[in-house]
Amino acid sequence: MDKSQNQDPLIYRRVLLTVDEDDNTSSERAFRYATTLAHDYDVTLGIVSVMESEDINIFDSLTPSKIQAKREHLHQVVDDYVKAAEQLGVKKVEPLVYEGGDVDDVILENVIPDFEPDLLVTGADTAFPHSKIAGAIGPRLAKKAPISVIVVR
Amino acid sequence: MDKSQNQDPLIYRRVLLTVDEDDNTSSERAFRYATTLAHDYDVTLGIVSVMESEDINIFDSLTPSKIQAKREHLHQVVDDYVKAAEQLGVKKVEPLVYEGGDVDDVILENVIPDFEPDLLVTGADTAFPHSKIAGAIGPRLAKKAPISVIVVR
Repeated sequence: MDKSQNQDPLIYRRVLLTVDEDDNTSSERAFRYATTLAHDYDVTLGIVSVMESEDINIFDSLTPSKIQAKREHLHQVVDDYVKAAEQLGVKKVEPLVYEGGDVDDVILENVIPDFEPDLLVTGADTAFPHSKIAGAIGPRLAKKAPISVIVVR
Repeated sequence: MDKSQNQDPLIYRRVLLTVDEDDNTSSERAFRYATTLAHDYDVTLGIVSVMESEDINIFDSLTPSKIQAKREHLHQVVDDYVKAAEQLGVKKVEPLVYEGGDVDDVILENVIPDFEPDLLVTGADTAFPHSKIAGAIGPRLAKKAPISVIVVR
């Protein structure tokens, strides 16, 4: 090992936390880890959730007003996380709400290029109900994302 | 979100870094992240590598002395990482060298129960040449491990 190349600390400067609408244990721990890092190193934290278009299309009966209500609810969820992070002393927090196709694709193709995080934080059980692929998004993003990914348990 | 449950910082107390024999970029970054965390939070760092039994069995011509040479080389690799971590100011570093079947299984069934880490740090390209499953171990461990896993890129 060439030690001369390994001397510098590695500190992530833009941390992206994915949240869903459920408060499962791993999501809470992911939130705690992301806010701990953002606070202790004074770096920027983005908190993102995705409203998948499946959430809309799967319910043909949804009226525009109901879609709007779902959208507003998701914004509220993300805003609640942002406020909680700010109360913990994180100074730079950005709410991010996206809509689109499969949540994996939205995060890989839209959220990451837009926000440009260097670390993605996700709970091991963070899931989106209508994702094309069942189960948690964390391990899949750990494989596919171009940036570092921590799956929190 | 119940904010009252989310107040405490989440700090990992026992960090396990997996290393292979190659010095690829993601391994170096994984080393840098693991040592940064261990240094900044003054927590215990274990540095582990696995000599898979495939490494031995696949070469029927290997003499006992050659197997011993491979074993000693792997110990040397891990010891070099340990020394580099200590030079960076990490106070509690433990070298861990295992032998066994598939590296994933060894880490899940032996290393994690023995060392009891709460965070596993692995490079996105950290690989073992004779693993049953081709490719990097990080995303697979991110899915299967009972603890938090960070895949570093």
